[in-house]
Amino acid sequence: MFEDWIHEKLKREIGIVRYNHSIRVMETSIRLAKYYNTNERKAALAGLLHDCAKFNDKRKLLKMADNSGIILDNIMKNDIQLIHGPLGAEIAKTQYNIEDEEVLLAIQYHTTGKENMSLLEKIIFIADYIEPNRKFKGVKEVRKLAFEDLEESLVQAMDNTIKFIINSGGLIHLDTVKARNYLKIEKSLE
Amino acid sequence: MFEDWIHEKLKREIGIVRYNHSIRVMETSIRLAKYYNTNERKAALAGLLHDCAKFNDKRKLLKMADNSGIILDNIMKNDIQLIHGPLGAEIAKTQYNIEDEEVLLAIQYHTTGKENMSLLEKIIFIADYIEPNRKFKGVKEVRKLAFEDLEESLVQAMDNTIKFIINSGGLIHLDTVKARNYLKIEKSLE
Repeated sequence: MFEDWIHEKLKREIGIVRYNHSIRVMETSIRLAKYYNTNERKAALAGLLHDCAKFNDKRKLLKMADNSGIILDNIMKNDIQLIHGPLGAEIAKTQYNIEDEEVLLAIQYHTTGKENMSLLEKIIFIADYIEPNRKFKGVKEVRKLAFEDLEESLVQAMDNTIKFIINSGGLIHLDTVKARNYLKIEKSLE
Repeated sequence: MFEDWIHEKLKREIGIVRYNHSIRVMETSIRLAKYYNTNERKAALAGLLHDCAKFNDKRKLLKMADNSGIILDNIMKNDIQLIHGPLGAEIAKTQYNIEDEEVLLAIQYHTTGKENMSLLEKIIFIADYIEPNRKFKGVKEVRKLAFEDLEESLVQAMDNTIKFIINSGGLIHLDTVKARNYLKIEKSLE
């Protein structure tokens, strides 16, 4: 799926391990898109390219973010890897020629989530969390839940992430808290 | 300490159990103020009055907030009890004649915390968390820490609170996340 040069460029830029992860996220995203009756091609594209800016070199991330005019919030300034979401959307647009705004937003918010997520954004977020090689605590339950109650699976994934960040002494991104609060409020209104 | 009518009014309005809690928070606040060399009288006043709007009646809270022009955020709309912080500052000002802006802010943010807290705000927040009758998980460690590293004790209290909210399925207030992120970033720059 998709032209060879995209795969070749991606493999070259993020390395084979992360490229293989991206293929699994793409496949999981396609399964979810089928299940939830939404555009499979968009899901595949966002899944494949979600980590296209996940470079290990922090200086490179900072420099490219600066060149792209991405404004870093306080959390990103302290947790440089978070830049790969917004920078990924920028690179997908300028270097992989992706014009679809929905796909770009799904790439942009795949790590933090955000308030009022689209179906595609939800699919990419959770596919990244549950792809078959993920092993972290609680993933089995979320993996099952993703095909039963997508929103509840997102809340659980985000809650697990927030607890993990607390236990490892990191910074909690406000977009993640906004995302899970929004999902919980929406659920309580059902 | 403080005029009799203040104690009588407070007892009448929030009930004897919560009044006794307020006295313990006042005493703990005074101890902390002494320890950290700040104004004991302000700490005592904010400690005594921090829960002056903690009414059980949700309709009363909503009506009084509306009358006072307090704008409820999405989290407060869903967790009505959170109103007692900002409403408490309003009532302390209009009904208990407190004019000191520092004291009013300490009352306003005693439940959620906020970014860049003043020393008095930190003292009231943590005194409410560690007063001698508090029994919840992790409180002993925070109680000890409050007299060793005030900022670290706040981070631990907030982290415990966030985890508790997650486990009980509630909504996480953004001010709490902003508060603990700010404290952690500040610490990392020391």
